[in-house]
Amino acid sequence: MPAEIKGLNEECGVFGVFGAPEANHLAYLGLHTLQHRGQEGAGIVTTDGTEMYQYRNRGLLAQVFKNQADLDHLVGEAAIGHVRYATAGRHTLANVQPFLFRFHDGDVALAHNGNLTNAVTLRRQLEDEGAVFQSDSDSEILIHLIRKHIKQGFIPALKQSLNELHGGFAFLLLQKDRLIAALDPNGFRPLVLGQLPDGAYVVASESCALDIVGAKLLRDVQPGELLVIDRDGLHEDHFTTKTQLAICSMEYVYFARPDSIIHGVTVHNARKRMGKLLAAEHPVDADIVIGVPNSSLSAASGYAEGAGLPYEMGLIKSQYVARSFIQPTQALRERAVALKLSAVRGVVAGKKVAVVDDSIVRGTTSQKLVKMLRDAGAKEVHLLIASPPFRFPCFYGIDVSTRAELMAAHYSIEEMRQQIGADSLHFLSVANLIKAIDLKDTGNAPYQGLTVAYFNGDYPTPLYDYEASYLASFNAQEQRMRKEQLKS
Amino acid sequence: MPAEIKGLNEECGVFGVFGAPEANHLAYLGLHTLQHRGQEGAGIVTTDGTEMYQYRNRGLLAQVFKNQADLDHLVGEAAIGHVRYATAGRHTLANVQPFLFRFHDGDVALAHNGNLTNAVTLRRQLEDEGAVFQSDSDSEILIHLIRKHIKQGFIPALKQSLNELHGGFAFLLLQKDRLIAALDPNGFRPLVLGQLPDGAYVVASESCALDIVGAKLLRDVQPGELLVIDRDGLHEDHFTTKTQLAICSMEYVYFARPDSIIHGVTVHNARKRMGKLLAAEHPVDADIVIGVPNSSLSAASGYAEGAGLPYEMGLIKSQYVARSFIQPTQALRERAVALKLSAVRGVVAGKKVAVVDDSIVRGTTSQKLVKMLRDAGAKEVHLLIASPPFRFPCFYGIDVSTRAELMAAHYSIEEMRQQIGADSLHFLSVANLIKAIDLKDTGNAPYQGLTVAYFNGDYPTPLYDYEASYLASFNAQEQRMRKEQLKS
Amino acid sequence: MPAEIKGLNEECGVFGVFGAPEANHLAYLGLHTLQHRGQEGAGIVTTDGTEMYQYRNRGLLAQVFKNQADLDHLVGEAAIGHVRYATAGRHTLANVQPFLFRFHDGDVALAHNGNLTNAVTLRRQLEDEGAVFQSDSDSEILIHLIRKHIKQGFIPALKQSLNELHGGFAFLLLQKDRLIAALDPNGFRPLVLGQLPDGAYVVASESCALDIVGAKLLRDVQPGELLVIDRDGLHEDHFTTKTQLAICSMEYVYFARPDSIIHGVTVHNARKRMGKLLAAEHPVDADIVIGVPNSSLSAASGYAEGAGLPYEMGLIKSQYVARSFIQPTQALRERAVALKLSAVRGVVAGKKVAVVDDSIVRGTTSQKLVKMLRDAGAKEVHLLIASPPFRFPCFYGIDVSTRAELMAAHYSIEEMRQQIGADSLHFLSVANLIKAIDLKDTGNAPYQGLTVAYFNGDYPTPLYDYEASYLASFNAQEQRMRKEQLKS
Amino acid sequence: MPAEIKGLNEECGVFGVFGAPEANHLAYLGLHTLQHRGQEGAGIVTTDGTEMYQYRNRGLLAQVFKNQADLDHLVGEAAIGHVRYATAGRHTLANVQPFLFRFHDGDVALAHNGNLTNAVTLRRQLEDEGAVFQSDSDSEILIHLIRKHIKQGFIPALKQSLNELHGGFAFLLLQKDRLIAALDPNGFRPLVLGQLPDGAYVVASESCALDIVGAKLLRDVQPGELLVIDRDGLHEDHFTTKTQLAICSMEYVYFARPDSIIHGVTVHNARKRMGKLLAAEHPVDADIVIGVPNSSLSAASGYAEGAGLPYEMGLIKSQYVARSFIQPTQALRERAVALKLSAVRGVVAGKKVAVVDDSIVRGTTSQKLVKMLRDAGAKEVHLLIASPPFRFPCFYGIDVSTRAELMAAHYSIEEMRQQIGADSLHFLSVANLIKAIDLKDTGNAPYQGLTVAYFNGDYPTPLYDYEASYLASFNAQEQRMRKEQLKS
Repeated sequence: MPAEIKGLNEECGVFGVFGAPEANHLAYLGLHTLQHRGQEGAGIVTTDGTEMYQYRNRGLLAQVFKNQADLDHLVGEAAIGHVRYATAGRHTLANVQPFLFRFHDGDVALAHNGNLTNAVTLRRQLEDEGAVFQSDSDSEILIHLIRKHIKQGFIPALKQSLNELHGGFAFLLLQKDRLIAALDPNGFRPLVLGQLPDGAYVVASESCALDIVGAKLLRDVQPGELLVIDRDGLHEDHFTTKTQLAICSMEYVYFARPDSIIHGVTVHNARKRMGKLLAAEHPVDADIVIGVPNSSLSAASGYAEGAGLPYEMGLIKSQYVARSFIQPTQALRERAVALKLSAVRGVVAGKKVAVVDDSIVRGTTSQKLVKMLRDAGAKEVHLLIASPPFRFPCFYGIDVSTRAELMAAHYSIEEMRQQIGADSLHFLSVANLIKAIDLKDTGNAPYQGLTVAYFNGDYPTPLYDYEASYLASFNAQEQRMRKEQLKS
Repeated sequence: MPAEIKGLNEECGVFGVFGAPEANHLAYLGLHTLQHRGQEGAGIVTTDGTEMYQYRNRGLLAQVFKNQADLDHLVGEAAIGHVRYATAGRHTLANVQPFLFRFHDGDVALAHNGNLTNAVTLRRQLEDEGAVFQSDSDSEILIHLIRKHIKQGFIPALKQSLNELHGGFAFLLLQKDRLIAALDPNGFRPLVLGQLPDGAYVVASESCALDIVGAKLLRDVQPGELLVIDRDGLHEDHFTTKTQLAICSMEYVYFARPDSIIHGVTVHNARKRMGKLLAAEHPVDADIVIGVPNSSLSAASGYAEGAGLPYEMGLIKSQYVARSFIQPTQALRERAVALKLSAVRGVVAGKKVAVVDDSIVRGTTSQKLVKMLRDAGAKEVHLLIASPPFRFPCFYGIDVSTRAELMAAHYSIEEMRQQIGADSLHFLSVANLIKAIDLKDTGNAPYQGLTVAYFNGDYPTPLYDYEASYLASFNAQEQRMRKEQLKS
Repeated sequence: MPAEIKGLNEECGVFGVFGAPEANHLAYLGLHTLQHRGQEGAGIVTTDGTEMYQYRNRGLLAQVFKNQADLDHLVGEAAIGHVRYATAGRHTLANVQPFLFRFHDGDVALAHNGNLTNAVTLRRQLEDEGAVFQSDSDSEILIHLIRKHIKQGFIPALKQSLNELHGGFAFLLLQKDRLIAALDPNGFRPLVLGQLPDGAYVVASESCALDIVGAKLLRDVQPGELLVIDRDGLHEDHFTTKTQLAICSMEYVYFARPDSIIHGVTVHNARKRMGKLLAAEHPVDADIVIGVPNSSLSAASGYAEGAGLPYEMGLIKSQYVARSFIQPTQALRERAVALKLSAVRGVVAGKKVAVVDDSIVRGTTSQKLVKMLRDAGAKEVHLLIASPPFRFPCFYGIDVSTRAELMAAHYSIEEMRQQIGADSLHFLSVANLIKAIDLKDTGNAPYQGLTVAYFNGDYPTPLYDYEASYLASFNAQEQRMRKEQLKS
Repeated sequence: MPAEIKGLNEECGVFGVFGAPEANHLAYLGLHTLQHRGQEGAGIVTTDGTEMYQYRNRGLLAQVFKNQADLDHLVGEAAIGHVRYATAGRHTLANVQPFLFRFHDGDVALAHNGNLTNAVTLRRQLEDEGAVFQSDSDSEILIHLIRKHIKQGFIPALKQSLNELHGGFAFLLLQKDRLIAALDPNGFRPLVLGQLPDGAYVVASESCALDIVGAKLLRDVQPGELLVIDRDGLHEDHFTTKTQLAICSMEYVYFARPDSIIHGVTVHNARKRMGKLLAAEHPVDADIVIGVPNSSLSAASGYAEGAGLPYEMGLIKSQYVARSFIQPTQALRERAVALKLSAVRGVVAGKKVAVVDDSIVRGTTSQKLVKMLRDAGAKEVHLLIASPPFRFPCFYGIDVSTRAELMAAHYSIEEMRQQIGADSLHFLSVANLIKAIDLKDTGNAPYQGLTVAYFNGDYPTPLYDYEASYLASFNAQEQRMRKEQLKS
């Protein structure tokens, strides 16, 4: 459903634990808190040191593990798990992770968050050399590369393989005797390391997954790092030293849970600051401030506080929207929008309403939102966006890889306002976004360790397989400019 | 899950429509917005004027109607639907409503929200006279009474039967040629009348169900009213004139959706006023104000506004908690609380926190809540309850029919505070609760049309079957006092 | 599927046990062997002396009890169970038995095999007196009658009620402290009494259900009998003495399992004798004899033996035909017949084939059968039916209650042969059918304790609610004759 | 269930069609008739010339295709399908066929019946060269070999790969523009070619699958053949000429459907001849002859005919035994055997019974059978086996790959008789088995084109990966003898 409401989709969450009793239940709890990062499939692989056990299926975690027995048979003290949003690859079971590969010299399980930018090239090469892929997923490429280099030994083969990959990736690998975590040289996706009271290590996409299992947040995994966790504890290694943090700014704006702490910053606090800075940058004449639940509530309360206006619940989100919801007939389809989100007439009627949302992708949701508020009697609707206009695609793990669908790529803010039907439309500036997130000590000018390419086209890496189609999406004049902007 | 979090459960929601194409889809949409009133079963009965069609099952609406075909075969232009929370009666399919009774002289379907106070007596009498009940549900009694008097004709038999019932009831009945709505003489449960643009009438437990189908709210159904809707339109009738509005105040405090309008009052607004009055009545020395999602967010923002403190998101509620969630092992059970609700460390750590909740029933949730906030680093935790201490059971449709489980029935506020572990604990007064809800023109002193018996024991009706056990729950001295307080 | 192949359907099987540990599992095993008597629903009610437990659903027994837990929660040492074929009544869960009725003065469960001939009249009367039926099933009438007379005490009320019923019925009732079995005055349906090694009593529709639970066959329940089994053992009683055995001859011809023993006769042996007598009555010039699996194999081997011809497997029946089988498209529908039954080309090609079937109802199956054999190369196809032409409906529990669908009611044997496309068509005579079944000592001339009304229209009882429509199905001249033939 | 009853399991059935509308439905019908060859998984892959579509799951065909939609989305005019019995490989979805492999230069689907004898060696080699397997199934090896040689082009690569495989295999491959069938050089498993009235070709494991779709049996696929079917029709090719027919004799004894025609012989007829020759070889003093349903009924009727004894139905098999059957408690487990198979007391009581079975594997079933008959009153029980003692494992596709479980490998016939508890025990001789099957013109002395290694240890090929463990199962003296007997 978030997909429909927002048009932005994360590509998965990962969770790993080594050396803890009930690793299966820990993985289950951890994945549950990461469910917002992917709702189309889930799975867990565990090992007891002798065998590896896998269970995965399409759907939400609670749908996948409907039967206690399916979780219980995942025995052992080490586990990796995955929740999936299907970007690349068909929506089939074969694409649901963790993958489990069985070899005569030892099984390997794999979970991946991110998107590779040279996947097509690598897959074609590997197939021509004899490889047989079992999924459409980019994630499988790593294992084929490892096998290609396996005579060097597993860890050297893994390091070499990671250096052949480009793009955004946070990988967890599980073998019978160890858990391995690896993060791409730019650290595009979040990945944190934690520790349970009994000393066992946990690795997860977000710190909220550490909280739920009772693990203490130790630190963020660093770009280029390779962490190996086995019976002897944690081994800190790296596969490359050519690194530069460029974490996805949209994690702070929209994806991550408000209680997660990423590179030292609590997401809710960053969002509230976005709202406050937005109020300073774009004050509006309104009676009340409302947020779009749930992702924009932090920013909205920040805006209200900054603007000195009352913060109200002008929109409510149903807790009961199911995936399996029966689609109404054509005549009623319009109505069904309100199943997820509805306006509170008693709050907005007769008011000048400042509604705060986190971002605009396709714009269709904003349009419905404004209409819904006007239908409920709002006198004026001012739309305040707590991030800059989303103009450029992402190739590192957000499901927006073409410009075609991006409203801000094709229209001016005034044109957008007209189409959306708001009385005014305002965005946070890139500078204020960076200021609101406020990463410390990243030593990465000019964006302080963030990727803001979606707003300004300044990608921190070459685009590889995507470069041609990216450039083709511009007119001739723009192409030249954008080509120069790209790294190579 | 709300059951576990709160310990308060509503007894069902009803929805009816007559004369509209796609009555099945309208009922489905309407019931969806009423899902918060009952999650243990759902069903719809429709009629095309010739036949009546029923589908019902245990579970959430979207689980019940998993297959499009099950909804599609409910043809016709009239429908009633029901979402059930199982208080009285076993949790079996036979108890899921609407009931459909087939007679040689015409079928009748029935949906009920409320609780009868003379059900045991009536059922025993009817069985001794030959009646065979098909469910454990009180709701079935009405139909047996009607059949007992059927020689008078259906409507006279219905009126006589309604006068033989005591307690809280909002009934919808469907026959092949009409839809009937009836509300008890005190109007304990909410029931509203609306109209679709094409003139068809809709009746529902809350106005949010009118909004979703595009119906305009006409008015609340009045105590003692009997509405008959057929091809000729709306016929306004009543089965008694001895009426006095005494709607359940907990609908405003906790049960109803914030966007619903009950007797002219928007629920969110009432809650915000509760928060504001609570701030005036009980100011605390705090850095931030947080609410318990989702039911207490309105009151919390009211408190923050009233107290001039920052309103923060210190607790977050997962959107993905499923009924079928696999229970963690004993060792991890403690953790699982946080699956539904978790504290935002980055917000509360080091802060003096004022946390606003709507009510305390058993107190166990409050205890966990305070612990959770302290574990996340809160320096002080002040618990503010936006309603008075819940000391007396409800016999009109809330699932709290004995004093045994009510914390406030057995402990002083200071004792409660100690058990809960808060730095301070404060409740809204009854007078301020009535002032916050602010019903107009009900002509019902002293409580302005509300039932506040849960807080002061002043029940607006005799207790019938429940009186003996209610009195027995007090010591001898209290018994005398409470007996005098009861109507008879 | 049998329904489609044959067009004859039994109306249920019943099983009861009292005083045995694991009554639930015994009922499950027993019902499994009675599955051929009904495939549209199944259920079990048990009691531990304090509570009664019910589980039932639509579908085959193994589909109903998919989860071990559903069987396990049916605790106690007494049980009744039911497998249902839906004749009367809609195919809804409400109609699946055993029914469980809860009263303040004691619960009653009910399972029924048979068909009442005055159900419509009784139901109408009862409804006019205030009764509310929960199912469309005739079986429910008994409980309403009992409650009407309940002031007399349960057993007297039951006896009086049984005397108000007409038609065929084998009832099992379960109360917390006893199991009751009752059979109609003509004993239309089979019902046997058995005993487990530890002394506990078992009652079942067929003796094969005694075998599976290890119970010894004691005797058939007699017409008009009322057996009460409680902690003190077996109490033999009766509700009427006006009895005369007239058991359904089709039980021997088609319905019962070949290993069941009914009134002292093993069904397979009776069928084999039917085949032998058919060979004597109608010898044909054939190379081989084949049977239609599975119900006609006994008769076919009898025919082969009688005729001195080789018995071959010329038709085979798939073991894997599922209820949920996906229907092929129109173009392939013809083919799908062969999914259930297919001809063995290597056996029949070039041969003169005598194919033995047990009966002809609508004739469509026979037509397909003959075509199938010819397509597989049979030179000649002689169809031999091991029972007389089925000309008259049954009102006592077989699902053929109108003449409209009966081929033999409308056509001569020669006309039937032509439509079916066989080279010859022969039926067993009524006299030989009676001789083949060979009931001993029933003292019931002229049919030796059998109902053969399907073949000659001589019904052993008045037809009550069915008489008018039965007579209306004949032309004027026939009506007079048939009217005279009917009892009144 | 056959697995439990018999202890012998086939390894799958395959079906393919090219150039026919509704290929999905044809595959579904075809696989249904092959369901006896595997009940643990099923799947279909189709192609419309542009895309390939796959659906597969664990369970019976009708369970896999529960929803019409799952079959309907398999569009196109070509299909291959598979029913699986899980011998090698875990019972996971990943092992359910047809496999579908996607490559940048064209997708390939694969279905396999048989067992490779050098799979372990090949897989190890391939993995060391970089291959990543997605299943535990031997069947996947072929595709990795093909990709290894792909630079030669697909068909040359396929031919070379097939020559690198040893053991029994019938492969179907589907590409967007063609269907390919290949059979191992000994033709261990059956595979037939048929043609639909409109000219489209069909390939299937047994001719019964041609019958159901209305295809005419053209001929058996020959050992070493490679058939390619595309828009231009049938291309007959071969991958080797070093061939010698050695089809599994157990196909005739037990596996194949009685109506299938394999190498010109109808299975029922072969079985009946086995029974007749058994009667000649081993006459016994009995009153009646009975068969073990369903596989032994043909042989039993042959025995009865040969011996001039009455053929009776002394054992009946339930039509309703479901996979999901709830296991009874320990106390009742003994009883549950009779759920599948029960003795007909009225037939066998007091009789000297000759019971004919097709084979003895572990002997446990025979033991239960004899006990069951004696419990039902049989005076004597003579067990006649319509095949020779099963002494040696099979490595070509029957699930009996070790000697450990084979009763006849460890005991003399007299010892077996005593353990089984029969009054006498007799087996058909190898010579008479060959005579009964009676393959014509195979030019393959001494066994006339059959594999009878299970009875005499004379394997037609080297055993490769299995040789060491096979020899190790004998004592030292036997080892020498058996080693000499093996090809190399």
